[in-house]
Amino acid sequence: MHTDPSLRTPLTDDEIFEAHRGGKLSVTSVHPLHTMRDLSISYTPGVARVCEAIAEDPAKAREYTGTGTTVAVISDGSAVLGLGNIGPKAALPVMEGKAQLFQQFAGLNAIPVVLDTQDTDELVAIITALAPSFGAINLEDIAAPRCFEVERRVIEALDIPVMHDDQHGTAVVILAALRNAAKVLARELADLRVVVSGAGAAGIACVNMLLDAGVPDIVVLDSRGVIHSGREDLNPVKQDLAARTNPRGVTGGPTQAFAGASVFIGVSRGLVPEETVQLMQQDPILFSLANPDPEIAQEVAERHGGVVATGRSDRPNQINNVLAFPGIFLGALEAQATAITPGMKLAASDAIASLVDKPTADNIVPSALDGRVARAVADAVAKAWRG
Amino acid sequence: MHTDPSLRTPLTDDEIFEAHRGGKLSVTSVHPLHTMRDLSISYTPGVARVCEAIAEDPAKAREYTGTGTTVAVISDGSAVLGLGNIGPKAALPVMEGKAQLFQQFAGLNAIPVVLDTQDTDELVAIITALAPSFGAINLEDIAAPRCFEVERRVIEALDIPVMHDDQHGTAVVILAALRNAAKVLARELADLRVVVSGAGAAGIACVNMLLDAGVPDIVVLDSRGVIHSGREDLNPVKQDLAARTNPRGVTGGPTQAFAGASVFIGVSRGLVPEETVQLMQQDPILFSLANPDPEIAQEVAERHGGVVATGRSDRPNQINNVLAFPGIFLGALEAQATAITPGMKLAASDAIASLVDKPTADNIVPSALDGRVARAVADAVAKAWRG
Repeated sequence: MHTDPSLRTPLTDDEIFEAHRGGKLSVTSVHPLHTMRDLSISYTPGVARVCEAIAEDPAKAREYTGTGTTVAVISDGSAVLGLGNIGPKAALPVMEGKAQLFQQFAGLNAIPVVLDTQDTDELVAIITALAPSFGAINLEDIAAPRCFEVERRVIEALDIPVMHDDQHGTAVVILAALRNAAKVLARELADLRVVVSGAGAAGIACVNMLLDAGVPDIVVLDSRGVIHSGREDLNPVKQDLAARTNPRGVTGGPTQAFAGASVFIGVSRGLVPEETVQLMQQDPILFSLANPDPEIAQEVAERHGGVVATGRSDRPNQINNVLAFPGIFLGALEAQATAITPGMKLAASDAIASLVDKPTADNIVPSALDGRVARAVADAVAKAWRG
Repeated sequence: MHTDPSLRTPLTDDEIFEAHRGGKLSVTSVHPLHTMRDLSISYTPGVARVCEAIAEDPAKAREYTGTGTTVAVISDGSAVLGLGNIGPKAALPVMEGKAQLFQQFAGLNAIPVVLDTQDTDELVAIITALAPSFGAINLEDIAAPRCFEVERRVIEALDIPVMHDDQHGTAVVILAALRNAAKVLARELADLRVVVSGAGAAGIACVNMLLDAGVPDIVVLDSRGVIHSGREDLNPVKQDLAARTNPRGVTGGPTQAFAGASVFIGVSRGLVPEETVQLMQQDPILFSLANPDPEIAQEVAERHGGVVATGRSDRPNQINNVLAFPGIFLGALEAQATAITPGMKLAASDAIASLVDKPTADNIVPSALDGRVARAVADAVAKAWRG
């Protein structure tokens, strides 16, 4: 069942730790410094000319510093992968890995930054103060609901692209996969009945993108059941979600949510039993993104699903946000965008979906290693910004 | 008079700006990611094993992230070169240049960070929160007297090496140069009468190092004259300085300070006229570090000085802090030091001085390009930490 030959044997701890020894990144000079002249140009006295030019016209920083191609990958370590709140130091290997992906797929310089605070006000103040160092900010692995407020306030404070990738990167790829899955099954987005399990960062962003894309019938489940306006235990983020979803006024739990649904999108960790899956329409679209253990067991999904996708690299149809974030940031930086808009995210999603020539049940998204993706996404995103 | 052939023709704006276009640094992967297996090791799911290991034992971060070899170069842009308070964006090219020097001379990864605040409490809070991202912190181009409090409080808060290079890097090289200049003139450090012009970051650190090295007779000048305990216009930093210097109780201005002195160390911007230099002892040691225009005009210095040094790369005896900071941070990181102590700075200074086999009036410090320096400094610094 391994789709990639390099993954036929399981990863070993030895090879994982060896690949991390000393860190995964290297910061080098674009021009080597061989002579006193090189030193005098890059450092004093020559550099002073460039400093003066930027002091006079701050827009020149984009041209004469690395900020035009530099993304900060910033985390407070509060929601790292499936590991939870493991803190900034333990989160750092993920940020280094993400920086490698930015470089590999988009040719961008990315700087891992982990912060020793989980206070919303402090995070906003620190990230805002850091901004002149970078061209864009990728927020990463910050727990919900804090991530929503941090992202909103940082976006308000800054005029550079800022995106919390756990929300939007994932949502962009889910929508791309859903477009192609619907195509395989000859369905229209507008006719789908979607269950989203999980109202965290990825779940809420996914709902927002589906609404933006014209999917009207979405029912969201959290750990206490269907989210609807009648519930009194909802935080403000979920109250807002209740107001914008669930047009048929479903109440109850998974049984009520899954009945008659045509799409399942799992971005949580709860397991969905086979009898619940059987409540869905014929040939449902089943995206179980929990990692390493999908919400719907693989054999169950294959028995019932019309199209099946997971977050796993060793199965077909991997929903991997590496398809989105390198190109989104590259396009935003190339267009000198001051924000990442919903239209740019939709354009990214379309671009990813379009790279699959003839979608089939086993091929709804490009491979995570597909070198064409970031360029196509960047072009679409830049075009969407320019309008 | 140009000592380096690469500097025979003046730098042009064109070549300076061209060398800065797009920035001077590149962030790359240590191991390229070719296969799905590579991706699965560096990012999910493999990276989670490393995160868990660090969450269990935070000391493992040094081994399995880049922090063991990563230095942040952090500035608020308030005292950049001789340009003053030009702000964070305009300061960034200097931090990028410094990062190049860290890489070139010490093989360290350095990350430029410029902060959009000049508030002492905010700077301390932000730099402290950033610390888990890095192995050491080089503070840079922060104005006095704020730099003293920021450095002291960040050192207190953190258990990683922190050093404000404008203070200590410069002081380390000045002391190295002074040792060899004294040797050339067959004088003892303890017998020198030193005038330091400038009570900013470099001046105060220089005084502290000279005291630590056993130079007792130091008179400091600020823009209002000799610093002595009788003055009522001194801030707390200068009051402290007054209590520890000026053992002969000199009062007045440059005339009184220079009379009978054997060493001048200029770390300010004021010009010293020839008649003032003539008040000094025979064959004085003249270090005029203001850049690009030394405090004592070159022809005056050469007419009267026994040994002459400047900060300029196009003259003999360049006092350049690149001789100090790469090796100091390399040694501190290699020794897993939790601080940079006065003993480590003195050891760095000795190591630099020792690399000049037979000092002469035109050769008291190694060349800024001398590839042996950082290694020798690092070894001396690590040894001093280990004790």
